[in-house]
Amino acid sequence: MNVSEYMSKLGQQARDASRVLANCETAQKNNALVAMADAINQGRAVLKQANQQDLDAGALKGLSPAMLDRLELTDARIDTMVEGLHQVAGLSDPIGGITDMDYRPSGIQIGKMRVPLGVIGIIYESRPNVTIEAASLCLKSGNAVILRGGSEAIHSNTALAQCISAGLEKAGLPATSVQVVEITDRDAVHQLITMPEFVDVIVPRGGKGLIERISADARVPVIKHLDGNCHVYVDAEADIAKAQRIAFNAKTRRYGVCNAMESLLVHESVAKAFLPEIARMFAEKGVELRGCELTQDLIDCETATEEDWYLEYVAPILAIKVVASFDEAVAHINKYGSHHTDAIVTENFTTARKFLRAADSSSVMVNASTAFADGFEYGLGAEIGISTDKIHARGPVGLIGLTSQKYVVFGDGHIRES
Amino acid sequence: MNVSEYMSKLGQQARDASRVLANCETAQKNNALVAMADAINQGRAVLKQANQQDLDAGALKGLSPAMLDRLELTDARIDTMVEGLHQVAGLSDPIGGITDMDYRPSGIQIGKMRVPLGVIGIIYESRPNVTIEAASLCLKSGNAVILRGGSEAIHSNTALAQCISAGLEKAGLPATSVQVVEITDRDAVHQLITMPEFVDVIVPRGGKGLIERISADARVPVIKHLDGNCHVYVDAEADIAKAQRIAFNAKTRRYGVCNAMESLLVHESVAKAFLPEIARMFAEKGVELRGCELTQDLIDCETATEEDWYLEYVAPILAIKVVASFDEAVAHINKYGSHHTDAIVTENFTTARKFLRAADSSSVMVNASTAFADGFEYGLGAEIGISTDKIHARGPVGLIGLTSQKYVVFGDGHIRES
Repeated sequence: MNVSEYMSKLGQQARDASRVLANCETAQKNNALVAMADAINQGRAVLKQANQQDLDAGALKGLSPAMLDRLELTDARIDTMVEGLHQVAGLSDPIGGITDMDYRPSGIQIGKMRVPLGVIGIIYESRPNVTIEAASLCLKSGNAVILRGGSEAIHSNTALAQCISAGLEKAGLPATSVQVVEITDRDAVHQLITMPEFVDVIVPRGGKGLIERISADARVPVIKHLDGNCHVYVDAEADIAKAQRIAFNAKTRRYGVCNAMESLLVHESVAKAFLPEIARMFAEKGVELRGCELTQDLIDCETATEEDWYLEYVAPILAIKVVASFDEAVAHINKYGSHHTDAIVTENFTTARKFLRAADSSSVMVNASTAFADGFEYGLGAEIGISTDKIHARGPVGLIGLTSQKYVVFGDGHIRES
Repeated sequence: MNVSEYMSKLGQQARDASRVLANCETAQKNNALVAMADAINQGRAVLKQANQQDLDAGALKGLSPAMLDRLELTDARIDTMVEGLHQVAGLSDPIGGITDMDYRPSGIQIGKMRVPLGVIGIIYESRPNVTIEAASLCLKSGNAVILRGGSEAIHSNTALAQCISAGLEKAGLPATSVQVVEITDRDAVHQLITMPEFVDVIVPRGGKGLIERISADARVPVIKHLDGNCHVYVDAEADIAKAQRIAFNAKTRRYGVCNAMESLLVHESVAKAFLPEIARMFAEKGVELRGCELTQDLIDCETATEEDWYLEYVAPILAIKVVASFDEAVAHINKYGSHHTDAIVTENFTTARKFLRAADSSSVMVNASTAFADGFEYGLGAEIGISTDKIHARGPVGLIGLTSQKYVVFGDGHIRES
């Protein structure tokens, strides 16, 4: 069987399984999730053995220590997987819920029912825990899923797939509800993203390069997350203490995350009151500052170039710009930002209200740290990713983002007269 | 300026205009819509002159009478445009509404704000009224739009564009909020669907061939409507009189619409009671029937081939199949149907409930005619099209389908502790 035949087979099996999942009861899905957790818990030895194969191959291949670390299945990480499966089992089931059953003048009653998307393809890098996370969220939302993890994790993922199948079968669900692509051929990804007859949506998780390539080649909709170039704008009427607390948290809570602040905008009228102290705080924490000319007049820092405003550093580096007005701040955010998460710090009601409308970002915040942009913090219960698109899902994507709605119409023999 | 430069210019202008539209007040949009209506009403002579140019060129080119009819701007059609603009002005504005502002354990308050998609590209055939319909819906939903109508309507569309610009300017909105592509070069379509930096979504309106080509080549999400192969399934426990009324209406109300029934499925236990009378009704109306073997045992009709089950006739033809079970009916609908609109006729509560889940269609109906699948009948106030996709919008697409939601987060200096 060649790659194309293999992927079509997975696709057809996923499509068939999706019909069963769309109609199954909540308890059955939850039973499967708990049974998967049990299989993983009891299969630790086998999982770690398979993982060791990947680690050995990775070391031989010269993977970086950071990559090897992400690849490793420690006991603590296995615990987290088991716990995660129980948590997803505990989430409420979005599927089948009917809302807004209103009567129309014609006499029909119409509303919307939440339904699964069908088959989801997930493409991700060599982190085995994503296998379980993605599988559990897709299953809970009633979708079949095809998982294509990084080739460096192939043995770990194949072993996890066996735990998943065991759990599905125990609950009486098709083992093909969750399928791991068990060939490492690169063409498998191309096949996966170009079979709209079998796959309804692709969710890529990984670096920007990977996601851009997938988006360019896909023949299937992609829920994607590119950059997280987030801003905090300190307004003329900001409470300076709040602004310092928020800016410091938004930058330093974690550097490698997409909701970290990468550029700080400061209204000129408060720059003098705000910048020296925050610069001291950042210096103490080891954050490198790159400022515009006006910033450099007030604090000691590197020069920010035009390119800096576009950058997602994912590092202890921050660009700072002093702006002359609210409008300049908003224009800067909409031009250089990535439409991910942007915050204003202000005490002015009217300015806050204007910012909410004007900032074209998936999350717009007033007097809160960008670090809150996260599915769990937002109460979604889970997160498959953060979408920087506007179509279908925007911002943190939880179970609802993996669903659609269909119309349901009730009548009593009603026909349309005209 | 070549085609690519011309389209990029339109794209950049649309993007810039979209920033203004996203922030403007409802009254301003409504004023523009009413001013457009006035401009059209007062510009009848000019519009009809431009339309005559298109009609003359079309006649010379040998367009069919049906195409020439669709192209013609009669006084009645101009009245309908004027009325349509007033109606859209009267719809409530979806933009800016904030819902579900809930507090989270961290202390932040989070909800969702409805926002425009940004820039919409509409590609349609030679029906000038679509120019006004699409322009008004995009404007009301806060989106800038680039309209690419059929080349046969170029003079009519250019004249309408002037009325639109006049209306926008009178209301103080950018004239570039609505732009008509004023070159007929075919490459303009390709450009329009491959500039994600300027266009957020494409809505094609026209034949299946056009929509398939656009979907295949687009680098931008497409809200599309392919087939409308709708079914009515008459269950074992159907009220026969209701079933006859519904099936007759679903087929004969209009033949050329996407919500017309194309296949009729009948449970074997009621086939004898149901089929002869409905066959008589259809015969009287001149509808050609094509049946499976069991159908042919009961009524006089042509033979339905495997291919018939896939067909959207858009004509007075109907395929009829007798099925042995509910499951066979559902499997048939999900296999041969187009996931548009499918109805069951049954008095059984449990069967109805099962059908709602199992039929994978954008509209699922119980005891109502498929003819109701329509944005106006559903109370959307307007309809830009019907989506047979699951991503973003499914079923009739009104103003809401042209919008997205962003998260809004309020704090009081809140930071994320862990």
